[in-house]
Formats: sequence, structure tokens, C-alpha cells
Amino acid sequence: MKVLVTGASGFVGRYVLECLLAQGQEVLALASHANALPHDKQVEWVQADLLDPMQTTSLMQSVKPQALIHLAWFAKHGLFWQAADNFDWCSATAHLLHAFHTAGGKKIVIAGTCAEYDWTQGVLCEDSTPTHASSVYGKCKDVTRQYVQQYCQENGLDWVWGRVFFPYGPGEPAMKFIPSVLHALAQSQPVACSHGQQLRDYLHVSDVASALVHLLLHTQTKGVFNIGSGQATRLMDMVNICTKAFDSPSPVHFGAVKVSADEPPVILADTSKLQATGWQPAVSLQDGLAAYAEFVKRPAAC
Amino acid sequence: MKVLVTGASGFVGRYVLECLLAQGQEVLALASHANALPHDKQVEWVQADLLDPMQTTSLMQSVKPQALIHLAWFAKHGLFWQAADNFDWCSATAHLLHAFHTAGGKKIVIAGTCAEYDWTQGVLCEDSTPTHASSVYGKCKDVTRQYVQQYCQENGLDWVWGRVFFPYGPGEPAMKFIPSVLHALAQSQPVACSHGQQLRDYLHVSDVASALVHLLLHTQTKGVFNIGSGQATRLMDMVNICTKAFDSPSPVHFGAVKVSADEPPVILADTSKLQATGWQPAVSLQDGLAAYAEFVKRPAAC
Repeated sequence: MKVLVTGASGFVGRYVLECLLAQGQEVLALASHANALPHDKQVEWVQADLLDPMQTTSLMQSVKPQALIHLAWFAKHGLFWQAADNFDWCSATAHLLHAFHTAGGKKIVIAGTCAEYDWTQGVLCEDSTPTHASSVYGKCKDVTRQYVQQYCQENGLDWVWGRVFFPYGPGEPAMKFIPSVLHALAQSQPVACSHGQQLRDYLHVSDVASALVHLLLHTQTKGVFNIGSGQATRLMDMVNICTKAFDSPSPVHFGAVKVSADEPPVILADTSKLQATGWQPAVSLQDGLAAYAEFVKRPAAC
Repeated sequence: MKVLVTGASGFVGRYVLECLLAQGQEVLALASHANALPHDKQVEWVQADLLDPMQTTSLMQSVKPQALIHLAWFAKHGLFWQAADNFDWCSATAHLLHAFHTAGGKKIVIAGTCAEYDWTQGVLCEDSTPTHASSVYGKCKDVTRQYVQQYCQENGLDWVWGRVFFPYGPGEPAMKFIPSVLHALAQSQPVACSHGQQLRDYLHVSDVASALVHLLLHTQTKGVFNIGSGQATRLMDMVNICTKAFDSPSPVHFGAVKVSADEPPVILADTSKLQATGWQPAVSLQDGLAAYAEFVKRPAAC
């Protein structure tokens, strides 16, 4: 099947490409800028700026993909939570969906986020937890999901909205939690953390990718799916796993970083709906973090 | 004070212009198309397409208003609830706000909607009722409010977000509830209604305008304000007031139109916050509907 992947040069995108190739699909990878196009023999890279509806329409008319995995969004670390750019990506997604459908596309998988949920609820379930985002980002993803659902129902498209929880792994932005811990340890610098008691649902990025591809290729069920491990991990425990990957780790100061009063104690995916499709994660947290630490230790990784 | 009004040729916009002029303000009225510009000696009309950020920036740099009443939004009857155009108006509002601030603007009043609220709550209060819109329109207005609030707080702008409930009066789209009833009566046609037991908060459009202008000119309080009457009126009672304006009214069939299972029984504004600013409505429902009926009876009104 000819599958177009947006956001293909991004963190999750690169793993999605690998996963699609491993399953023998014809993969078209989209990047927004020509100079972001990697050289890759197995993947055909195409270039278009999805914020320009004309480019989106032209792309779809020339490529005519049967399936679409849409990962592209504004993702600048620290800024994306409240930026007006989120509004542009709501529009861009609506244009993309229409252009895909008009060009004959049949099934779309879109990356949503656990930030669409009301985080005071702790354990988050697709069909019973209200979506009540606190951020502009979460609200924009949520209203885009509503639009996509309605458009696909009216136009007979298959659709999956995958609410991604906390992905980790090589390639993620260096300022995020786990890479910042690993890089400090690799440079023998002290690690400043919050109290570390928060429970979060982390999933290795290769498993996030395999879940998205599984939902595209191997399920008939439409709708919203949580993409997580279903396991709550204490941040302190994750840091301790990281330190074990180093022979003489630098000290970790829990409590050195203050958390805001509304920091949610628990953000955990109910993954029963996802697992009922037959998907299982392949990478344990122990193995994923150990391999990630080895990746960071390599001189080229900095 | 130099006040720019967007959506000035729309339903509420025309009443806002009148109200600003009556209070001696210097009024600039914005329309999106040159052929929509009315001839008016008291108001200076300007033209720009707010969906084009370049035009928005140019407009603000040439006009440099001190205050802004932003009413423009996608409003096509029947379509606006779920359309992707709502996303474009989120972006347009963010651009407008930034261009206004950059050009030296100080205070902004923006039209929100009661559709931002969770309608299962009945009586809706700015500070205690959760915003939990069911429509794309309501969700987009809500996330735009969040963005505006944050932008204005960070940049020191005065801001008011007026959640407009159910405005009525001459000039509203003919397919809405009250004009459709009045036009049927004026043409001696039978009137098909739902059961008519719904309670809604209707406010004459001239009072909606006076509230928005009052919040611009006469209050220091920033934030969200409900714009409603604070009175719940049964739709059946409104129809019966309408029929009294006709000598031999055509029959009204309550129950002829089915309502959806999730039709909210009550949508009522808590207006204590608005009324605490000293604003009061001037037009009673009886007087407003009687005058509206006379307007519809005039041959030119069709």
C-alpha cells in the first residue's frame, strides 16, 4: 500500500518510516523544506509546506496515497503549549484531510496527544475520560480530532486518532526530561530533578511507531486509541534506571527543581482498547533506557 | 477614542457602530470586501481581509486604533457549527491581536459565545461553569479566548471577552428562530415549531451592542463577561408574544419539529458580573419583539 507520512523527518516520523518499510509498504515521506530531505534509498522523500493549502492540494494530486499517517504539527520545545501556531496546524490538518480524500485516499492515522484529556483524572480512557485540555496545544488537537471524526464519518474514510502519551528514545529534543538526564550523566554533571514522585506513562518511540502502523495496517476499528504502555512509572525510578547505565554516575538532586501547584500526580493511559487490537509493546523500560544511555554515551550523539 | 470595529457590516456590528457613535467615539468600521462598504458620513469604512495576515498588519499600521471591538468570525448559518473555517478565524484573531498591539493598541473587546460552555450545566457563570463546548465553533472560540487572555496578560493589554448568548433583532439571518417565526406570521403561513419548552437567554441586539461598548468604555475590569439578559424565556412564550403582534395570526404548531435528544433544556446567562459594572438592558422582550414584528411587517423588510 502507498502510505504518505507527514512529519517524516521528526522524532516519531523516522521510526514510523522504519516500521512501515519493515512491513513491506511503499513509503512516501514528506518534509516541509527541501534541505530537510534525507538521502534514503528505500523511502521516496517529497517536499511540501502543509501550511500552504495550494501545496497540500498539489502534493496529494501528484502522489495519490491510499493511506496517510499525519504526524506533522508545530512542536517547538517549550513554545508549542500555548503558541498561535497551533491554530495554523488545525487549518492545515483540515486542508490535508480534504486533499487526501479528494485524491482518493482511504485511511488516515493522525497523532493526537494525551494533553487532550483532563489531566486531573489520572487514568485516562478514550471512551470515558472527558477531553478537557488545559493548554492551547491540547485544545487545538482535541478540536481537530472532532473535525476529523465528523469529516471522515460524512465522507466514508477510515480514521484513527492516536493519543500519544510520553514517547522517549534517541532523536527526541535534547531539552526533554530523559535526554536531559542522560546527557548530564554522560557529561558527569550533577542532575537536578523535581521531587520525582510523578507517575507517567512512557513508551519507547519505536513502540509508539509500531502502534501507529499497526492501527493503520492491521485493524478495522475506527476511532480514538491511546498510544501508551499502560504502565505508570515514577519519574524517580526512571532516573534511577538511567544512573545504573553509568559506572560512576554523578549525583542526582531530587527536589532541586520546583513543580507547579497544578502538576498532575498521575498521567496514565488505559491501553485496553489498543491492546485488544493485538498490539503489544516490544521494548521494556529497562531495555529502552539502557539502550538509550548507550546511544547518548557515543561521542557522535551529542 | 479611535475604535476599530471588525465584522462591522454584520448583524451585531451595525448596532455596535450606532452605539459607539452615540457615545461620541471616533469609529472606524472594517469590512472584508470593498463592495460591502456602506456609504456613511459618520463612520469611516476601511477594507481588509483578516484571513490575510499581511492585510491585517498593513491595516493596523495605517489606522493605529487605540481600541478594538472584534466581532468578525465565520458565521454562515447552519454551517458555522462544525466548519474548518473556524480554525482560520482562530489564526486570524491571533494575528489581529498581535498587529493591534504592535501598532500601539491598548484595549480589545472580543465577541465570544455561550457555546463555549458545557450546556448541560443550564445556568452558565463565567467563573464557575466549565467551558466544554460540543461544537467545533464553540471549541475554537474557547481556545481563542485562552490564547487572547494569555497574550494580553503577557503584553499588558486590557481585554474583555464577551460571551454573547441569544441576540435577536432586525438584521439577523432570516433562517434563525425568531425571524423565521415572524416572517411566517407576516406571510400568513402556519408556523412549525418544536415543543417550545426550551428556556433560553435572549437579548435584543441593541443591548448586546450596548453591553460590548460599555465594557470597552466604562469598565476597568478585564476578563470574561456573559452578555445576556439574565432572564430565561420559554421559546413557546416568545412565539406567543410574536403572534400577538398580528391581528389574525396564522396557526402555530408546537411539536411539529423534532428536537435532538441532546437539546439542552436551559441555556441561561448568569449576568451578575456584567450587571455589577453598571450596565442594564434597555429593551424588554415584549417591546423588542413587538418592534421587530413591526419591522418585519414593512414591505421592504423582506
